[in-house]
Amino acid sequence: MSVLSPSPPAVGTLAARFREVRAQTERLCEPLATEDYVVQAMTDVSPTKWHLAHTTWFWETFVLSEYAPGYTLHDERYPFLFNSYYVQAGERHCRAQRGYLSRPTVEQVYAYREAVDRAMEAFLDALDEAEHPAIADVIEVGLHHEQQHQELMVTDIKYVFSVNPLRPAYRERLRQPAADPGPLRWIDGPSGVQTVGFAPDGNATSRERFHFDNEGPQHRVYLEPYALADRLVTVGEMMRFVEDGGYERPELWLSEGWATVQEEGWTCPFYWEPPGVNSDRWEHFTLAGMRDLDPHEPVTHVSFYEADAFARWAHHSGLAPGARLPTEAEWEAAARTVWSGTTADGTAPGSFVDAGRLHPAPAAPPAGGDGAPAPPSLRQMYGEAWQWTASAYRPYPGYHAAPGALGEYNGKFMINQMVLRGGSVATPKSHIRPSYRNFFHPPATWQFTGIRLAVSI
Amino acid sequence: MSVLSPSPPAVGTLAARFREVRAQTERLCEPLATEDYVVQAMTDVSPTKWHLAHTTWFWETFVLSEYAPGYTLHDERYPFLFNSYYVQAGERHCRAQRGYLSRPTVEQVYAYREAVDRAMEAFLDALDEAEHPAIADVIEVGLHHEQQHQELMVTDIKYVFSVNPLRPAYRERLRQPAADPGPLRWIDGPSGVQTVGFAPDGNATSRERFHFDNEGPQHRVYLEPYALADRLVTVGEMMRFVEDGGYERPELWLSEGWATVQEEGWTCPFYWEPPGVNSDRWEHFTLAGMRDLDPHEPVTHVSFYEADAFARWAHHSGLAPGARLPTEAEWEAAARTVWSGTTADGTAPGSFVDAGRLHPAPAAPPAGGDGAPAPPSLRQMYGEAWQWTASAYRPYPGYHAAPGALGEYNGKFMINQMVLRGGSVATPKSHIRPSYRNFFHPPATWQFTGIRLAVSI
Amino acid sequence: MSVLSPSPPAVGTLAARFREVRAQTERLCEPLATEDYVVQAMTDVSPTKWHLAHTTWFWETFVLSEYAPGYTLHDERYPFLFNSYYVQAGERHCRAQRGYLSRPTVEQVYAYREAVDRAMEAFLDALDEAEHPAIADVIEVGLHHEQQHQELMVTDIKYVFSVNPLRPAYRERLRQPAADPGPLRWIDGPSGVQTVGFAPDGNATSRERFHFDNEGPQHRVYLEPYALADRLVTVGEMMRFVEDGGYERPELWLSEGWATVQEEGWTCPFYWEPPGVNSDRWEHFTLAGMRDLDPHEPVTHVSFYEADAFARWAHHSGLAPGARLPTEAEWEAAARTVWSGTTADGTAPGSFVDAGRLHPAPAAPPAGGDGAPAPPSLRQMYGEAWQWTASAYRPYPGYHAAPGALGEYNGKFMINQMVLRGGSVATPKSHIRPSYRNFFHPPATWQFTGIRLAVSI
Amino acid sequence: MSVLSPSPPAVGTLAARFREVRAQTERLCEPLATEDYVVQAMTDVSPTKWHLAHTTWFWETFVLSEYAPGYTLHDERYPFLFNSYYVQAGERHCRAQRGYLSRPTVEQVYAYREAVDRAMEAFLDALDEAEHPAIADVIEVGLHHEQQHQELMVTDIKYVFSVNPLRPAYRERLRQPAADPGPLRWIDGPSGVQTVGFAPDGNATSRERFHFDNEGPQHRVYLEPYALADRLVTVGEMMRFVEDGGYERPELWLSEGWATVQEEGWTCPFYWEPPGVNSDRWEHFTLAGMRDLDPHEPVTHVSFYEADAFARWAHHSGLAPGARLPTEAEWEAAARTVWSGTTADGTAPGSFVDAGRLHPAPAAPPAGGDGAPAPPSLRQMYGEAWQWTASAYRPYPGYHAAPGALGEYNGKFMINQMVLRGGSVATPKSHIRPSYRNFFHPPATWQFTGIRLAVSI
Repeated sequence: MSVLSPSPPAVGTLAARFREVRAQTERLCEPLATEDYVVQAMTDVSPTKWHLAHTTWFWETFVLSEYAPGYTLHDERYPFLFNSYYVQAGERHCRAQRGYLSRPTVEQVYAYREAVDRAMEAFLDALDEAEHPAIADVIEVGLHHEQQHQELMVTDIKYVFSVNPLRPAYRERLRQPAADPGPLRWIDGPSGVQTVGFAPDGNATSRERFHFDNEGPQHRVYLEPYALADRLVTVGEMMRFVEDGGYERPELWLSEGWATVQEEGWTCPFYWEPPGVNSDRWEHFTLAGMRDLDPHEPVTHVSFYEADAFARWAHHSGLAPGARLPTEAEWEAAARTVWSGTTADGTAPGSFVDAGRLHPAPAAPPAGGDGAPAPPSLRQMYGEAWQWTASAYRPYPGYHAAPGALGEYNGKFMINQMVLRGGSVATPKSHIRPSYRNFFHPPATWQFTGIRLAVSI
Repeated sequence: MSVLSPSPPAVGTLAARFREVRAQTERLCEPLATEDYVVQAMTDVSPTKWHLAHTTWFWETFVLSEYAPGYTLHDERYPFLFNSYYVQAGERHCRAQRGYLSRPTVEQVYAYREAVDRAMEAFLDALDEAEHPAIADVIEVGLHHEQQHQELMVTDIKYVFSVNPLRPAYRERLRQPAADPGPLRWIDGPSGVQTVGFAPDGNATSRERFHFDNEGPQHRVYLEPYALADRLVTVGEMMRFVEDGGYERPELWLSEGWATVQEEGWTCPFYWEPPGVNSDRWEHFTLAGMRDLDPHEPVTHVSFYEADAFARWAHHSGLAPGARLPTEAEWEAAARTVWSGTTADGTAPGSFVDAGRLHPAPAAPPAGGDGAPAPPSLRQMYGEAWQWTASAYRPYPGYHAAPGALGEYNGKFMINQMVLRGGSVATPKSHIRPSYRNFFHPPATWQFTGIRLAVSI
Repeated sequence: MSVLSPSPPAVGTLAARFREVRAQTERLCEPLATEDYVVQAMTDVSPTKWHLAHTTWFWETFVLSEYAPGYTLHDERYPFLFNSYYVQAGERHCRAQRGYLSRPTVEQVYAYREAVDRAMEAFLDALDEAEHPAIADVIEVGLHHEQQHQELMVTDIKYVFSVNPLRPAYRERLRQPAADPGPLRWIDGPSGVQTVGFAPDGNATSRERFHFDNEGPQHRVYLEPYALADRLVTVGEMMRFVEDGGYERPELWLSEGWATVQEEGWTCPFYWEPPGVNSDRWEHFTLAGMRDLDPHEPVTHVSFYEADAFARWAHHSGLAPGARLPTEAEWEAAARTVWSGTTADGTAPGSFVDAGRLHPAPAAPPAGGDGAPAPPSLRQMYGEAWQWTASAYRPYPGYHAAPGALGEYNGKFMINQMVLRGGSVATPKSHIRPSYRNFFHPPATWQFTGIRLAVSI
Repeated sequence: MSVLSPSPPAVGTLAARFREVRAQTERLCEPLATEDYVVQAMTDVSPTKWHLAHTTWFWETFVLSEYAPGYTLHDERYPFLFNSYYVQAGERHCRAQRGYLSRPTVEQVYAYREAVDRAMEAFLDALDEAEHPAIADVIEVGLHHEQQHQELMVTDIKYVFSVNPLRPAYRERLRQPAADPGPLRWIDGPSGVQTVGFAPDGNATSRERFHFDNEGPQHRVYLEPYALADRLVTVGEMMRFVEDGGYERPELWLSEGWATVQEEGWTCPFYWEPPGVNSDRWEHFTLAGMRDLDPHEPVTHVSFYEADAFARWAHHSGLAPGARLPTEAEWEAAARTVWSGTTADGTAPGSFVDAGRLHPAPAAPPAGGDGAPAPPSLRQMYGEAWQWTASAYRPYPGYHAAPGALGEYNGKFMINQMVLRGGSVATPKSHIRPSYRNFFHPPATWQFTGIRLAVSI
């Protein structure tokens, strides 16, 4: 659920963005074979077909059925199949069995999309701009919702391909920068009494107009002095952790993290493959298939447990004395300093899904004029890889979920998960803002998740 | 593994049967959408795509790679994917994850079939008839192997469709006979010292020429006097069991059967749906979708536990005092009496997959001339529904599995399973003979499995 | 691990407290039969015998083996058996199998205690007061550690007795007050910039001299305005939740909380038994056996999930609009206002294990002179029942666990657990202070855990 | 359930045997500490305390409550606690949680035994000999039932002690013979039409008067020619299997056996411990604690899967070409040839619990006069170690369980288990007869189970 600022976008703008977001969802499917749409290779992963239909169900349920006079369901059996977790929206199919459904076929799902798109466009055409800010709000939620599923479509198909011994590629890899990002340096963040959470007016750019309900209420926090690392942790740094026995030393891990290491047999980050399996070098699985590890790239697909253990190791090993993960308030206060005015369109600086690389790239070396070394600055705060924070995903002071099914969007998941910030190469660029809170369970690795270190001063 | 009689069929005959069996496999797929080929809805069930490829792998592995000079694998990664359980044929993909593979695509799998078919035909063309009885033997195994998978394709797709809330139909139902098969009557079977197991010569028809290794060695048994029911147990009789609290009375069940009833929440046979769910009548899921129960049809999709409990109930309730399941030796001795000469082509009498009904039909009323009641006779001994026997699946005296991967075909499964006899509406007609031993675990229900009662005299 | 203030207690004081704490542990066992010491009825619960031996191992490992010259282990096989989770202290027995050990016998465990007590007393006698503040620190940890196990001994034996159909009593119940504590009222807490965490000097009473490492570093937080309920939630209020369908309405629960409700079949708080099972009234299991529910008592043995759902229900039902759980910082800031000077000995006001009631009692009605209603004040902030907070158990800013095995004491558990504050009827009175952080997983119910509500203003 | 022959024993004889059997149960507990009675270290294992109470409940339920006028239960809550699996005798406590019960205490359980013993003796004193053959039958069942639990008490306490890292001993080991039993030789068994099952008259000795219902009906079988090994497989022979990679070669195992090997991590027989763990030699856990392996002793504590794999290995390795396990009919036909007249009291020849050795001993070398080699003969057919047969535990032709709770004694377990014959060092000598059928699941190892090979001729 979300709250919009008092001045919602014009209907025409919404309609244009609706078309754009819906089309982007389908563009992401272009490399897929029909069979690829069907598979669910673990419970957290959904079939592409399901994502296509679920996002469509969202529009049908929360806009058309609610507001479009005389709308009749495309297929009355679909709400049961494509409701994800909204208990107040009715009974639903078991999540773990989404891969058991061969029907509706891919073609039927595209027909479902097309029918709902037509109904939505007709609905938006007929919408009286003056009277419907509430509808505009739901439409914004729907757009951001579909963008979240765009990211999941990318990470889910990556997972599905990875468990296939044929190791298919989603598409060929775009050329990545290969520069050495230089050693870790520390950038002081704003401390003392700070304000966090979505700012409905004043400090927000136009893109920050929308936010999910979990980004508010805006409130004050007190931050003791701290600094953030100027870039993400690299593959090369993670390799030092691996080589220093990081996955064999329980004293570096949270107790439940260590239990996970042992139960899952982890010996390196997810998607990494040691020399001797299929190659004589370290490789990792990417959306372009198996590739050599590049030490300059940010490490990604690490769990919170690994991020936390890496920080502890960085502290003890001398790589970064005092290192820990930043809290989400520290992250946000610092991230706001590199947001305003850095992009012409008011969106986040950094590499997102729009750039098409689909894999995090090394941080650009700090630019200095005249060959002189540039002063360090915060790099990679947005895009590339989600940054695990030290903060558990809990409600902000004064938060209460809205009543009704859309109130289930965020609030009911505020337990046992950790907050991530900043977006990734699978996130749509227009989806991110400084107050954006993503969240996953501590062992999760199938998202593009990375590490930024912090220290107390 | 199998043993052929000394005179193997001519090469030309084998080639013709190869074409026929391979084509029949693909004919069974005609009603399917691409997506239907991909799904594995429980571990026992394999995707159709996998069946198509695994049977192809079988020819490639045990014939072409072994005997065809210079044969190279169609794709060297396929043996890992499509070896089922032959540990001596190399490493293999995890059975429970067959549904995680979107690739190779259905089209690629058909290309695999076509390539292997061409290689097989070339191989058979070049085969010198005089010198290759051993090869003929392996080819017979391959044909019967593919027939077994034809049956599994039918039962597996039925299962896949059944768990889909849309309840798709494989195809429309053919008209079934609707006659009342009359009350249970008892037919004495041959007793005393009897010979069971495949007879390599003498009493065999031409179709009995082949057998799997688990059907031998032929040996003698002593049968105390007994009689078999003249037909399968009907849906109507099973309904009496249900209505008499059969699924709520632990004293009717084996202890592990009762545990299964409770863990699985069984209240009626698999695929049955009580009134009040989607209809006001008892229905069941069939390959033609949901249909009303017909009391005259044989009950099917019952587990051994249910067959055993039904027999105990039949004994106690007075329906059939003394009732129990027949041993496999009793069944075979009796079944031989209705085999010889009953069909022109030497195959089993009864309804098999060839008849296209895909659901067991009521027993034809005993035919009597001039309106006089006919003497009772054994009906439905072959086809319709596999008949659970009272016998555990164990080796016959003197049985030793052959060395090598094909020796794993049957022998290593001879524990914790029960023998079934007679074939079903999903079995190819030419696949069955009196000595044929099928076997499943006691809780299995997704095959067309039914009940024939017996009594000791 | 802990940090003491610069002036550790005199050796003689430590020795006296050592004797007192060790004796208290054994006094708690007086009602037990030999068999009661052996049982582990779920993984979280340990046998009494194990608690007796583990606390003894703690002294042997961290004091005697470390500091006592020439000390030899009482039994060299015991460290394997009685190390709980200190991986840096060596291999250890599987936690889930503590109930599989009939040996050492109870008598042998008491002999172990006696031997270690003698060695500790000799060690303390010989200790030179001037030079050993570090040892005093470890001894304080050992004393507080043993007190923690005293609490677990009480809650664990309650659990063991509860699963026994004979429902034995630990001991007869002491008379409890029975007054109606009055309606919920709200007390504003200190807001703005506040200091939380253990205060090594200045504001601490003598008892606050010691703290566990997880209570620091002391740091500032910003608290938006809030108020706390003046007392714990009662059984009567929880009954209204039950009667209002609280356990059947998913919209009141966190998603994982609702999953727990369904998996565990919860319909009311743990240890409650509805009418119709063994009585015609609501009962609950207590350390005095089955007893009628008393609506005035604080509800206890609720999980975080239930506390959270109750707060949401209180908000929606109108019982307490805006209700939520307090954060741990809110709780601590408010709790400090009722700490200083309220008890002559500087310990917490409220009912602890020392009072011997072993079950939470109703809040005393606010005392007013002359029959006039007293102004509301914070009651039951200490003792009675641990109070679930809204805060996840995470490190304070700047926290790093100490190196070595004792560093595992708290830090490695800082994930997936929620903070509780205030102590319970099973906690030793001298064990509690305002900064004390207890922590359990959200579904845990076997501790004396209750609910205090808060609101944002 | 059982059937006695027409002439039941005199009441005085029954009373004497009752006293003797009951006393023997308690004698087996003499080495135990109170704590040892409480522990249940896996579901199959019951606490000693439970065995003592359950056998007492059996007398109370099936004799006193049924036949003793005016009998009142010793404690009306005990039937719930001590009924094992008789659903027709009422609700019962969960088997897996027998170790969660500290109460009733051991002392209370002995008081229960004493009270029931007194009631039984009074009942038997008053019993009119002429009119109560039915009661005599139930009493025989009770005596044999208690003997079965005597065996389980021994094997269960062995298991409990084995999982304790302290490895306590039940008692010191008696001296065992140490002779080399010589190479395997083969003894032809009776073949053709043979009679198996309990013989109610004629060929039975006095001890064979009683039998459990699963030993009948007596019936004919046809046995093709076969021979049995003259002795049990030894530890030395099993060691050859281990050293030949027996636990690493899937082709030697049944498929589910191999899955068990991998899931359980088996590398040698249960209770064996390889060099390098606690000693530099192969050891095994015995009721006298850890001991060196003796190559001449029979191997014991092997599962059916291991027995089956060993036989297959013996066949392929050349140790015993053609080797397999005997069917239970083969075993019984051969065992009858060494039964009649071999012992003065009509009981089985061989070492049972009465001998007090509590571990299988090497076969005595065949005795020959004048130093000449003796002709081979069947040794170790009774006692030492239960012999896994190739036969699944299924009903004999014509078997129907009796109605009522006692009818659950055997019949409902006739699935998924394998038959064992001959008794062990933990079996009471008077409990065994040629027709006796024991049964366990294929992976079970905690009983004294061994291997006898057979060959088809």
